[in-house]
Parts: sequence; C-alpha cells; structure tokens
Amino acid sequence: MINEIKNHRSVRSYTAQPVPEEVLNEILAAATRASTTGNMQLYSIVVTEDQAMKERLAPCHFNQPCVTQAPVLLTFCADIRRFSLWCRQRGAEPVYDNFAWFFNAATDALLASQNAALEAEAHGLGICYLGTAIYTASRICDILSLPEGVVPVTAMVVGYPAADTPLTDRLPVDAVVHRETYKDYTPGDIDRIWHERECSRETAGLLEANGLPNLARIFTERRYKGEDNLAISRSYLECLKKQGFFNQ
Amino acid sequence: MINEIKNHRSVRSYTAQPVPEEVLNEILAAATRASTTGNMQLYSIVVTEDQAMKERLAPCHFNQPCVTQAPVLLTFCADIRRFSLWCRQRGAEPVYDNFAWFFNAATDALLASQNAALEAEAHGLGICYLGTAIYTASRICDILSLPEGVVPVTAMVVGYPAADTPLTDRLPVDAVVHRETYKDYTPGDIDRIWHERECSRETAGLLEANGLPNLARIFTERRYKGEDNLAISRSYLECLKKQGFFNQ
Repeated sequence: MINEIKNHRSVRSYTAQPVPEEVLNEILAAATRASTTGNMQLYSIVVTEDQAMKERLAPCHFNQPCVTQAPVLLTFCADIRRFSLWCRQRGAEPVYDNFAWFFNAATDALLASQNAALEAEAHGLGICYLGTAIYTASRICDILSLPEGVVPVTAMVVGYPAADTPLTDRLPVDAVVHRETYKDYTPGDIDRIWHERECSRETAGLLEANGLPNLARIFTERRYKGEDNLAISRSYLECLKKQGFFNQ
Repeated sequence: MINEIKNHRSVRSYTAQPVPEEVLNEILAAATRASTTGNMQLYSIVVTEDQAMKERLAPCHFNQPCVTQAPVLLTFCADIRRFSLWCRQRGAEPVYDNFAWFFNAATDALLASQNAALEAEAHGLGICYLGTAIYTASRICDILSLPEGVVPVTAMVVGYPAADTPLTDRLPVDAVVHRETYKDYTPGDIDRIWHERECSRETAGLLEANGLPNLARIFTERRYKGEDNLAISRSYLECLKKQGFFNQ
C-alpha cells in the first residue's frame, strides 16, 4: 500500500517548525493534480500562515489547539466563482449557481484536499482535517473574505508532529464494501463489525470518563448531538444560499 | 511529489485484463485508511464486477464505453445507515438524517475514493471518476439496492489502461491558491489564468469541431448546459430526500 496512505493518522499536536515555502508549494501543486469535474477546477485553497489570522479562525474550529499551533491552515473551498467570471468575460452564460454545482465543486475541493494531505505526509508533515469548517462556514466566509460563489467545505492543519500518534482503528474492510448490490446489515453483522472497537481498552476508558454504558451513546449524547447536527444543517444550508449556490 | 499524484490521469480505455482480487482488496483497504468524520466511516463502496450489472449501470453513466470495458466499477456512497443501525441497536438515538450529515458522509466517501484512486494507480491500474453518479443517483440506488440512508456521491472505473493517456493541463497553481484572504479575480487575472489553455492546439481543435468562438462557450453550450445543470440539481436533491437525508 502507498506508504502515506498506510501510515496516515490525524495529528493534533505540532512543533513550531515552519513548513518551508517550497514544501508548501509542492503540497498545493499536488492538490491541483487531482481529478476535477470536466477539468474546471471548481475549488480554491486559502492558505493561512499569519498567526493573527489563525487566532481569528480558531473559534470557527472550536479552539482546537492545533489550529493556532500548526504553522499552516488550509481551507478548501468549493468555488464556482472563478469559472463563472471566466465564462461571463467570454460572453458565455454560466449556470452553476445551484446545488448540483455546489456538489461538483465540493467534490473537486475534497479530492484536492486528500492529495494535499498525502503529499504533506510524504514530506514528513502531519495533518488533521477540521470538519468544523462546515459548522461555522459563514464566519469563515467573513474572515477569509470569501465572495459569492465560494464556500468552505473542509479545512486542514499542516505541520511537523510534536509526538507519535498511533494509527486509528477502522472497521473491517468488508464492513464498508458491498459486492454487486448493497447487502443490508443484520443485527449480527452490526455486532460483529463493531465488536473489536467496542471491546477495546480505549473504549473502556471513554465509557468510564463519560459515565455512559456504550460507545454509540458517546456519539449521540456527547460528540454529535441531535440538536447540534440540526443546527449545523440549517446554518450550512443558509450559508450555501447566501454564497449563491441555491440561486436556481 | 508522490508518483501516483504526479502521474494521475483519467483513463477512458481499458484492456480486458481483470484486476486481481488481492489488488482490489488492497485498493479497498487503502480507501478505509482515509480520514473520516469522527472515525464514523460514513460511507460504503459498492463493487461492480459482474458484466450484466455493469451493463445495467452503463446508461446511468451516459453509456461511456469505459463503464462496461473496465473490469471494475466502484460506486462510493454516503452512508449514514450502518452507523445509525448500530446506534439504535445500542439504545442510542441517531440524528444523522439531515443535510449536515449527508455532507459529512459525502466527505468521508470522497476522501476514501481518492485514496482508492491513488492506490489503484500504484498497482499500474488506471482510473476514471464518473461524476455522472449524481446525475442519475436515483436509478443507481435502484440498481444497487441502496436503502434509506445511502446515496451515491461518485463512481470510478478501474482497470489496466489500453493506451497511454497524456497528462491533463491545469490552471497555474497560483490561480487556485489564495494567501490569507480570497483575492478576487480581475479581468486581467482571468485572461492570464486561462491563457495557456485557450491558446492550446487542443482548444483550437475543439472550437473547430464545435463551431464556437471560445472554450467557455463549449462548457456552457455543449458540456454543462444550464437546463441540464438545473435538472441535475432538482433530481439529486429529490434523491437525497428520498434516501432520507432531509428528514430533519
């Protein structure tokens, strides 16, 4: 398996060592080599290295320490603006301000982000995706001056790891793979798939710390609560509308 | 730069040589190593190798010959179902049937897909993303028996390339990168960014073949027309509702 894929982990603690400009440029160039919808490159990457800007963005990412600690923060944005400006300048009428093209552009941005992640790791750097980019998308738009047609879809810190991070466990591969058609999960499948994780020492520690009887309830009652999920849904949809992805 | 990233191209013509099972398994395992939202792995991968199934799916991908020609077709799906079944089985109440979690799950699926693409290429295989997966998502749901909580977000053919494919040009890296804040594009920027592509021999050939005065109009009038874009928006949103991603 490609070394960077096999050894990928989310790094949450970084040294102060800066990312050399030529390494950052190689990471950004790697991002642009990913497949994109019709080679339209419907994304932009906003690079944050300025400490004051990182501090302004930190609350958008729930003040996770890695946001201000890591030397580089990348915000990957769906971007139909650049392409639409080009079209108009050439007398062509772009009709990309709609949901399908938000999703095409988001896809472009996300494939680019994964290339950036792996390329960073190939240079000995660590990364951590910040899913919070969609929780607080409107504030990020303000701070990064994202105009109509541009919206954050994910973010990532990049830097030199301060410590070794263990690999994260995954469900067995066959738990996420279906042959020819989707084979729905029986209660027995569900038990089998999660067995190892549910029996782990890490889970035992989490249950103890949270005073809850099982791991699933840590997800629904602590990590990703219904009311928060619905608030994020509403605010991200509103942000997409405000940024012009639901005009038609 | 990581070799597979640097040399990635979309391959549209394949030999009949099958993908060995152990190679396919390595590709699928690589997919599962990508970052995922809270390590929830909110995606499923449906593997199509059966020729009759590929023929049923081909119209969903506009009968592009590679769909039936390539030995393997992978459909990457956002999947909140498996996780929600687990939660319910443990007495936890999942609230993931909403837009935010469609997007989290889509992100998981797309990062996994890019790992799969690169890992396939590391084994000498070629791939091509099929953005058509969102155009005809409801039909794909029917053919692959995708239940509520599962929806296609992208697809990819995988196989041994029948011919060399040239690298695709990209906009200059600085065209998609912004430092600290989004720098909006001036008309001069737009001209500069697209200059090389607009002056290429490939573009000249396309203009001739399409009888159109510029490349932008090939996109808006031939490749991605307004009426089609709006139809895709409507049908994909309807499919997301039908599959239970807008329940709340």
